[in-house]
Amino acid sequence: ALIAVLPGDGIGPEVVEQGTRLLKTVAERFGHSFELVEAPMGGVAIDRTGAPLPPETLALCQRADAVLLGAVGGPKWDPPAKVRPEQGLLALRKELGLYANLRPVAPFPALHDTSTLKPEVLRGVDLLVVRELTGGIYFGEKRREEDRAFDACVYTVDEVVRVVRAAASLARARRKRLTSVDKANVLETSRLWRSVTERVIREEFPDIELKHMLVDACAMHLIKRPADFDVIVTENMFGDILTDEAAMLSGSIGMLPSASLGANRRGLYEPIHGSAPDIAGRAVANPYGTLLSVAMLLRHSLGLEQEARAVESAVASSLDAGVLTADLVPPGTRPVGTQEAGRAV
Amino acid sequence: ALIAVLPGDGIGPEVVEQGTRLLKTVAERFGHSFELVEAPMGGVAIDRTGAPLPPETLALCQRADAVLLGAVGGPKWDPPAKVRPEQGLLALRKELGLYANLRPVAPFPALHDTSTLKPEVLRGVDLLVVRELTGGIYFGEKRREEDRAFDACVYTVDEVVRVVRAAASLARARRKRLTSVDKANVLETSRLWRSVTERVIREEFPDIELKHMLVDACAMHLIKRPADFDVIVTENMFGDILTDEAAMLSGSIGMLPSASLGANRRGLYEPIHGSAPDIAGRAVANPYGTLLSVAMLLRHSLGLEQEARAVESAVASSLDAGVLTADLVPPGTRPVGTQEAGRAV
Ligand SMILES: CC(C)[C@H](C(=O)O)[C@@H](O)C(=O)O
Ligand SMILES: CC(C)[C@H](C(=O)O)[C@@H](O)C(=O)O
Repeated sequence: ALIAVLPGDGIGPEVVEQGTRLLKTVAERFGHSFELVEAPMGGVAIDRTGAPLPPETLALCQRADAVLLGAVGGPKWDPPAKVRPEQGLLALRKELGLYANLRPVAPFPALHDTSTLKPEVLRGVDLLVVRELTGGIYFGEKRREEDRAFDACVYTVDEVVRVVRAAASLARARRKRLTSVDKANVLETSRLWRSVTERVIREEFPDIELKHMLVDACAMHLIKRPADFDVIVTENMFGDILTDEAAMLSGSIGMLPSASLGANRRGLYEPIHGSAPDIAGRAVANPYGTLLSVAMLLRHSLGLEQEARAVESAVASSLDAGVLTADLVPPGTRPVGTQEAGRAV
Repeated sequence: ALIAVLPGDGIGPEVVEQGTRLLKTVAERFGHSFELVEAPMGGVAIDRTGAPLPPETLALCQRADAVLLGAVGGPKWDPPAKVRPEQGLLALRKELGLYANLRPVAPFPALHDTSTLKPEVLRGVDLLVVRELTGGIYFGEKRREEDRAFDACVYTVDEVVRVVRAAASLARARRKRLTSVDKANVLETSRLWRSVTERVIREEFPDIELKHMLVDACAMHLIKRPADFDVIVTENMFGDILTDEAAMLSGSIGMLPSASLGANRRGLYEPIHGSAPDIAGRAVANPYGTLLSVAMLLRHSLGLEQEARAVESAVASSLDAGVLTADLVPPGTRPVGTQEAGRAV
């Protein structure tokens, strides 16, 4: 299998290094052969080529079976800069047609104390957010005039159908409950979202229990009764906000993996944390989100379920053994570095 | 002073009843005369007149010094209904020019244990969200075609200037720190927001410390280190989501008041909770959010600071004395009803 590796900016290269090491270990142990090819994307690509997603990088990703990404961005390329790292990530998602972004949140018991939420609230939490990733206000027309700015949020029926199908299929293999999150009391796109979701579930997934929830109510329930959720499906911007919030259930945003999938098996895998320029280069970043993204890569793009589980239980064992990075340790305890955590897994 | 009273739907009338009782008590104790005039708005107005904001109700509010509102909405008028209660609320905000929505979150020590967050995270939390309330995607053009839907998000320089000024003035009377929340790495309106905010603070509020934060990062920090925030200013939709999330810091959404202000002293005051149709008519709703909204009304529209503080300390004393409604009591304890809590204050 060909795996494109895009380390990106900030702590990206540090965590991705542990990811590629893990892929090599899995290949050896289970007798697979993975071809890993690195390419620039994000700020590093802007510096080297002027473009955040160089054509060669895109071509490599299109040829690959899966893409492993670190993180992109940094103050050096912040607005008002016209060419920015995130544009590369957004273009990559769009070009590869990766419309379904899976962000599972299932806090490890070893980290219950690390969260700012009470341990009893975290018990039994095992939710999956499926975020629409190539539509909505992220990709609508943008305009700037002298004294005003404009962003269009657009959704088509087909865009909603395919992501709801993806989410419902995943719910079918889980607890069969789907919460669709929108703002139907205000937005036209949300009313479309709600009626299409209603129809897809009724016609194609009668075995799935569907509930609608307003995005503001969901932001509340995620902290109040997170164990109530099974699969959540929502549009691009709401998904962005709600998943960063939900990340806090797992103790640190450094823990969370993600998979971005489209119509075929090819996927993009990345931790949901950012490039964290403040701690970059110090070898203290948490690599677990990337390692768990590797597990998702093995599962969803390569069909290697057994290998994926092996990685996930290795992560759980490391955490149980107290191999904790700076973002996870209780005050007064010595943290381990990025490499040490990677080696432990 | 003339105060328009709009009980609205669901638990709205129950909590507003306690609010008007409190206003009468304050008038007596402090020797003021408040004229309270009730009018229909929301679902109740649709049922009675066909319109969620009847012209007579709007006229009353325009004449009034302040408006006290319960809550609007309910399954009876949910989409696909074409005429809906929230349209009345949105129209009222727009017609009265209430562009700055103040939502303070300062958890009462007596309720620290009620929150799903750890008490040590709540210590010292005293933040104020100033949400832009008459612009953005809430009020942009909406379109529905056969197979697609469209919402426009628009912001003008003037809209940003005035709400940032309001937020910065409030920050000046507090800890002088302002966090402006946007999604400048994706949205054109956010880039406008950021540059205008930057300029207003530099030119008019050099004594205020300004920080920009992305909305996803803010959703995270609100649960991770809420005590870090002083004043947060943000656009309409982000403010809607973030304040419901922040409400969880205070133990229950039933605790939180809000004030919506414009260019003059007239304001609209409402608890941030919804109409809660599931518990309506059972006299168990939490009236504290409404009572605290009355305090904001006294302060911001009537200039009665001493009276506002008296209300706030009466609420704190009630809570200290264990006068807790169903949403606040620990499991196994008997809650008090709406009226009892209102009487206690
Ligand atoms: C970097 C940014 C454009 C991106 C997004 O908003 O989608 C990030 O926050 C994410 O969630 O992957
Ligand atoms: C009822 C609804 C339209 C409203 C909003 O989204 O503004 C409510 O959620 C609020 O926060 O006041």
